[in-house]
Amino acid sequence: MTPDTAGKGILLKADQISATFIEEIKQSLQKSTRSPRLVGILASSAAPSRSYAEFTQKLCQEIKIDFVLKKTGAALSSELQEGEGVEEAIIEANEDQAVDGIMVYYPIFGGQQDHYLQQLVSPFKDVEGLHFKFHYNLYHNIRYLEPKALLESVLPTTTGADEQQPSAGTVKSIIPCTPLAVVKCLECVGVYNKLLPYGDRAYGKTVTIINRSEVVGRPLAALLSNDGARVLSVDIDSIQEYTKRPSTERKYHRRHVVQPSTLTLQECLAISDVVISAVPSTAYKVKTEWLKDGCICVNVATEKNFESDVREKGSIFIPAVGKITITMLLRNLLRLQGYKQT
Amino acid sequence: MTPDTAGKGILLKADQISATFIEEIKQSLQKSTRSPRLVGILASSAAPSRSYAEFTQKLCQEIKIDFVLKKTGAALSSELQEGEGVEEAIIEANEDQAVDGIMVYYPIFGGQQDHYLQQLVSPFKDVEGLHFKFHYNLYHNIRYLEPKALLESVLPTTTGADEQQPSAGTVKSIIPCTPLAVVKCLECVGVYNKLLPYGDRAYGKTVTIINRSEVVGRPLAALLSNDGARVLSVDIDSIQEYTKRPSTERKYHRRHVVQPSTLTLQECLAISDVVISAVPSTAYKVKTEWLKDGCICVNVATEKNFESDVREKGSIFIPAVGKITITMLLRNLLRLQGYKQT
Repeated sequence: MTPDTAGKGILLKADQISATFIEEIKQSLQKSTRSPRLVGILASSAAPSRSYAEFTQKLCQEIKIDFVLKKTGAALSSELQEGEGVEEAIIEANEDQAVDGIMVYYPIFGGQQDHYLQQLVSPFKDVEGLHFKFHYNLYHNIRYLEPKALLESVLPTTTGADEQQPSAGTVKSIIPCTPLAVVKCLECVGVYNKLLPYGDRAYGKTVTIINRSEVVGRPLAALLSNDGARVLSVDIDSIQEYTKRPSTERKYHRRHVVQPSTLTLQECLAISDVVISAVPSTAYKVKTEWLKDGCICVNVATEKNFESDVREKGSIFIPAVGKITITMLLRNLLRLQGYKQT
Repeated sequence: MTPDTAGKGILLKADQISATFIEEIKQSLQKSTRSPRLVGILASSAAPSRSYAEFTQKLCQEIKIDFVLKKTGAALSSELQEGEGVEEAIIEANEDQAVDGIMVYYPIFGGQQDHYLQQLVSPFKDVEGLHFKFHYNLYHNIRYLEPKALLESVLPTTTGADEQQPSAGTVKSIIPCTPLAVVKCLECVGVYNKLLPYGDRAYGKTVTIINRSEVVGRPLAALLSNDGARVLSVDIDSIQEYTKRPSTERKYHRRHVVQPSTLTLQECLAISDVVISAVPSTAYKVKTEWLKDGCICVNVATEKNFESDVREKGSIFIPAVGKITITMLLRNLLRLQGYKQT
């Protein structure tokens, strides 16, 4: 983690960040009586999904987590359709008492039909944190929940539920893996200041997030702004500001509010301490010349969203977060297993 | 409803079909002690949403349903953002005991964020039938439910739950408005055969549905195939067949199964008794020359998906279903109000 000999910023690989979490998970597992069982459901023939499944399998073997890969549809046989049998596989895993966590390798059908499947996974087994209930808690800055509340379809009232400390019988809510992985990166590189109170540790930081999907950009903007950051959320058709700090009134918000921004992308980048990009396009590049000197850059997309000279401006560049994402998923698995004992 | 003087097929307007249902709703209301309250949430400045809201208001006035239009965001003021405050408006309506039904005028944010909002509406007030639980029931051919089951996040087991007759304490599940409107059109024009047993009344009919979204095409394909039809589901990248009838084995399926189809669109149209199109594009047209002589054509899209000479081949052409959709929504409202008494 020392600067490059050429005087450029640091290139920080996901492995270095995930190592600590993997160690923590191993230690937790040693203390537990039963290795948790994770079922991975692979229903498409897409190569990235297959690689991701193989990677999960390898990591679980290494950590000694009981991973079962369930192939269905086009992943099982070229005579079957993409996604065939995936709904049945999810229901079976939901109903199987021996299963602690379920991960589904998306995309399968794409769009709304995948979203339907995400709601089908029991929130008690949703290691990816894609269930509506977890998004709801995140957007409302509700950090703890009673596990039995997941059995009910009624949503928690939004007043007074966003306490920063757990109360009796509550556990931490599950946070979607990829946004959580980015937060862990930022904690790791010192964007979160541990001298500040919990829930406010990103105060003083300006972050640009390029992408506002429900899987990455919006939950991440909510997370960082709920932690005190000023977030500039950039999407193809608009730029918004997420913050829990007031612009005019003196009263702080209990959770983030969203306002339109009049800044351009260039102006956002010029003032950002952190730039996170998750654009699923090889053509898209964040211009190095627009970056603030010494900023921290995180590439979340599978594609390379930063120009190759990003470290001429950026002090730290994290080119990929996939390995941290999968580590967060296993961390969620342990957490969900813990729910059962509560 | 007599054929055109030029010997062309019948042009059947939505008004004629919706009239019967409006009459039924009026009669139900006369018997009830309290007029149900419907809250319409308008959060975007889009003209079609505003028109639809005004239309709902007018119809509710005429039928004497207590309609409250709640404007927020860009619908309320040009100084506010598109969708600003919509989440709070939904939560408020969820929590307000006096509100029986909630409809939200989509699109607001588009895509996944709108899907998030759809899950936020309490299933007890979801007149549009967009909640995951209702889609789940539809896809699993579960026609009845215990209202209290909507309070639970646990899904019904999928075996034995698809009975055709209600059992004690159960009520009809809510069906998404637009697909339901199309089914009512088809019942009205005789596609459903009342001599056949309930749940099989579309047996013998081949239906092509162009669109496979989660809001229109897929639920509609599920509905029609659960009722016995052979459905050819056409989307931009594939053609699938939905059927509950076996292709090789002799055993019938309790609910539809999906198989890839080797037919082309032209081949689908050549054998279809009914053609339903819901493509959101002015450029898209179903070729009249490909239609089977005497088929029934239903245009669900706001755009004109059929060529102007569609009635040269089609025996009946229904150019729009919007008015029937809103009637189904009010029918769902009465049904949801009824849930409270169960």
